[in-house]
Amino acid sequence: MQEFTDTMTSAETIHQQLAFLMELDRLKSVIRQSPLANRSRRENSAEHSWHLAMFALVLSEHAERRVDAAHVVKLLLLHDIVEIDAGDSPIHASGTDKAALERAERAAAERIFGLLPPEQAERFLALWWEFEVGETPEARFAKALDRLQPLLVNTHAGGGTWTENGVTEAQVGERYGPAIRGGSSALWEAAAAQVRLHFSTVA
Amino acid sequence: MQEFTDTMTSAETIHQQLAFLMELDRLKSVIRQSPLANRSRRENSAEHSWHLAMFALVLSEHAERRVDAAHVVKLLLLHDIVEIDAGDSPIHASGTDKAALERAERAAAERIFGLLPPEQAERFLALWWEFEVGETPEARFAKALDRLQPLLVNTHAGGGTWTENGVTEAQVGERYGPAIRGGSSALWEAAAAQVRLHFSTVA
Repeated sequence: MQEFTDTMTSAETIHQQLAFLMELDRLKSVIRQSPLANRSRRENSAEHSWHLAMFALVLSEHAERRVDAAHVVKLLLLHDIVEIDAGDSPIHASGTDKAALERAERAAAERIFGLLPPEQAERFLALWWEFEVGETPEARFAKALDRLQPLLVNTHAGGGTWTENGVTEAQVGERYGPAIRGGSSALWEAAAAQVRLHFSTVA
Repeated sequence: MQEFTDTMTSAETIHQQLAFLMELDRLKSVIRQSPLANRSRRENSAEHSWHLAMFALVLSEHAERRVDAAHVVKLLLLHDIVEIDAGDSPIHASGTDKAALERAERAAAERIFGLLPPEQAERFLALWWEFEVGETPEARFAKALDRLQPLLVNTHAGGGTWTENGVTEAQVGERYGPAIRGGSSALWEAAAAQVRLHFSTVA
């Protein structure tokens, strides 16, 4: 593989990279369950990824274990790209075939990152996998932010996907708590206060 | 200012940071002139910012002067946030009052970044200003990508804002060329080839 990349010209490299970047445009058409905070429409996965990258830039000081904020940003920019082929999998859906979804996402990662020059494709695949496995401090914090953002949006949008799916306060605790607490107990404390406030107003 | 931040509790800090992050949600409703590549609708500034951050992660090796890719990513994630108050200013619009726009954007930056704890607000303001001034290698490269992305989207969307505004091949060269070439001559060469191809097909 190294041999192959060494013999690629800069023009060929750029050609592959631009094809990958134009393929990414399709993430703007993958629609998530979460609404915008102003409830005007549902969020797409591209703007969600931007929002999460901003969460990482702003909140990294609160990570449970010290993280490289720039690395968290990278993980979050890349983490949803597989949805171009595999679609978004809503947190409140039941009956999802987890093994089938994982196979679909793995195939998507290989196809989409495979559009890049081989060495860069390997690096991007490794970053995506690091997020999926969720064991490094950066991946744990990234996963916490990926739960924190829709939680905040739901409280700002007057319930959002919780109201739609009849999700209870206890279920919010179960479905968001472990991931957020795993990345930052301080952020979970702040989030839990907003959740309590939301359910006390709608009750 | 330092004294003030030192006495802030972590809960107060988080409260301000989350208020800032929820304010950012509004960038998803700022609509740009550029279409999506599939022409289904116009692009918004939040998903555009994500796309640009990906351009930076993928293309930084082609920068005219060596750049810190993570820093380019930061500049691009932040560069359009002022549009929440000041709106998007299309490249092909005529008669824009540049001085008034600059004042509006400066006021927007101070209000929006000012939602953050003071020290962080200063850092983000400085990053936004670094992009605006465009003198560091990272800012020049970021500005090149901010021109390259809509150029590519227009060629993929069969003309996009060029067709809408009757923009000629020469005008594309004048309006996109200097910024892209200033950040990367290799990327300008690749872009110019796509522009030639586009205008040779529509002619």
